[in-house]
Amino acid sequence: MTGDGSFERDRTYITTRITADGRDGFPVEAGRYRLVIARACPWANRSAIVRRLMGLEDVLSLGIAGPLHDERSWCFHLDPGGRDPVLGIETLREAYDRREPGYPSGITVPAIVDVPTGRVVTNDFERITLDLGSEWAAHQRDGAPDLYPEGWRDEIDDVADKVYRDVNDGVYQCGFAAGQQAYDKAYQRLWARLDWLEERLAGRRYLVGDTLTEADVRLFPTLVRFDAVYHGHFKCNRQKLTELPALWAYARDLFQTPGFGDTIDFAQIKAHYYVVHHDINPTGVVPRGPDTSGWLSPHGREQLGGRPFGDGTPPPPPPPAERVPRLGRAG
Amino acid sequence: MTGDGSFERDRTYITTRITADGRDGFPVEAGRYRLVIARACPWANRSAIVRRLMGLEDVLSLGIAGPLHDERSWCFHLDPGGRDPVLGIETLREAYDRREPGYPSGITVPAIVDVPTGRVVTNDFERITLDLGSEWAAHQRDGAPDLYPEGWRDEIDDVADKVYRDVNDGVYQCGFAAGQQAYDKAYQRLWARLDWLEERLAGRRYLVGDTLTEADVRLFPTLVRFDAVYHGHFKCNRQKLTELPALWAYARDLFQTPGFGDTIDFAQIKAHYYVVHHDINPTGVVPRGPDTSGWLSPHGREQLGGRPFGDGTPPPPPPPAERVPRLGRAG
Repeated sequence: MTGDGSFERDRTYITTRITADGRDGFPVEAGRYRLVIARACPWANRSAIVRRLMGLEDVLSLGIAGPLHDERSWCFHLDPGGRDPVLGIETLREAYDRREPGYPSGITVPAIVDVPTGRVVTNDFERITLDLGSEWAAHQRDGAPDLYPEGWRDEIDDVADKVYRDVNDGVYQCGFAAGQQAYDKAYQRLWARLDWLEERLAGRRYLVGDTLTEADVRLFPTLVRFDAVYHGHFKCNRQKLTELPALWAYARDLFQTPGFGDTIDFAQIKAHYYVVHHDINPTGVVPRGPDTSGWLSPHGREQLGGRPFGDGTPPPPPPPAERVPRLGRAG
Repeated sequence: MTGDGSFERDRTYITTRITADGRDGFPVEAGRYRLVIARACPWANRSAIVRRLMGLEDVLSLGIAGPLHDERSWCFHLDPGGRDPVLGIETLREAYDRREPGYPSGITVPAIVDVPTGRVVTNDFERITLDLGSEWAAHQRDGAPDLYPEGWRDEIDDVADKVYRDVNDGVYQCGFAAGQQAYDKAYQRLWARLDWLEERLAGRRYLVGDTLTEADVRLFPTLVRFDAVYHGHFKCNRQKLTELPALWAYARDLFQTPGFGDTIDFAQIKAHYYVVHHDINPTGVVPRGPDTSGWLSPHGREQLGGRPFGDGTPPPPPPPAERVPRLGRAG
């Protein structure tokens, strides 16, 4: 926390890269690495989506930390015996400590772990998705889309930067504000940006160009969590997402696109935020709402045109072991 | 709290009555009593509405405790010098203690205080509205409606009882549940009852008969607070009120009826719940949402017929000193 009660994110990440040429000592290699995510975490959600869109499931395995953790670490409480079955560890901290004993920064997901040594290679979430989309090209499925097309990079970066500051991180600025003024400031920035996005998406199917890009991958994880956790728990409550016509239809469009909605587990999302943030929800009671059945309703966005996968194709369903529960009506 | 973490309301009230015949020692008398409410409190809201509908403003004065209080008492922090200008007290507890030194139960609003002695006469909220509607007949305005008509009393009592248990008190059962199970149970009862009300109100303008009655007066204060505090703060979040078509139109219809909406101060409502309930909102940050401008939108309920005031008429606007702030768009 800063002096005025506003929340400041620790942005120290391990910037080692896994590349085709292996210049940081970690060459792209099938079966060597494990992507650790948590279904709850929006930053990790991005990498789960891109792994799906690129069809890397057989090449880069997936470890899933559970929704609950203490101050020290995410952990594998969903796995048999409370251990990740490949890494054999109970807490993700162990893999960070193998990288650097007493690792001093946040134990965050996503993290890519080098399986032979059990060490975290990187947790640089912005770089991870870009690299899965480019450096891992040799292992991508046929029809994998280009999420970061050359001609659109400046615009993608610009939109993603605004979305990061005011929305992705903005909801945390609202929720973790320790004082009214810091909250008010974050709330106003968030809603100004959501209004901007609502207008932008009213007439175009995707954020940049006419295909899915990194910009959409980065906005979606926040939108999909909005009514479930940010609206109430983080006090981002001018409206629900379902009250913003273009953004709600856009979010449903993505949700219903293979690779997006099939990474979402609302129960884990709610359990994480409401149980872990003891400072803002001391009882640990997890709300039963909202009703999530609307996510599967028709969105009508096809009318706006757009080619979701560009010259590519949608990915097939996820492997059975990675399937998330189907949506039901709350309550 | 009970053993399973469910919330149990202290239902001990002072049952002395102010009557036309003065049989409890407190005869109805113009200028003698002061009704103390808080704009925040739904139980007090009922009495503020009935006082307006009956046109008792010049006969029974109004004291307004502020939204903030400590564990010991509501207090008059909105008044000049922090004292009620008529009773001269800083905290409502003083009037309770004058009634019974060391008053052992809850210091609640509404409370009617005997001005000459400064003592609370009654805080029996269910009885207060019934008595304002009957015992005070000699002082009511011309055109005051009959909110408790003889022929409908059984049905009013039946509906009001269901609404009390599952909705009026039900939202508190959700919000103050100390454990998941107690919350889940309260949530299910609340939503089953709201579904029941939604169906009931789809085809009829008011809850009982074809006029405004006590049943409507009792439901309205909970509905009007629903999206502002119960939805997020109390985790009553299957839907917002605005997502329940009949209930939302019904609530707007009442809000726009003189005597109802003009008793509502959303800022005081939010300040109370979010600041006072430190146990469930430790930061004390008050959300800026939701947008309340929709309360003034057309409700279309006239089509269902009904005669809001029966053979009576709507009350004139409230006295200037009792006007609440106009609605604005949040954020």
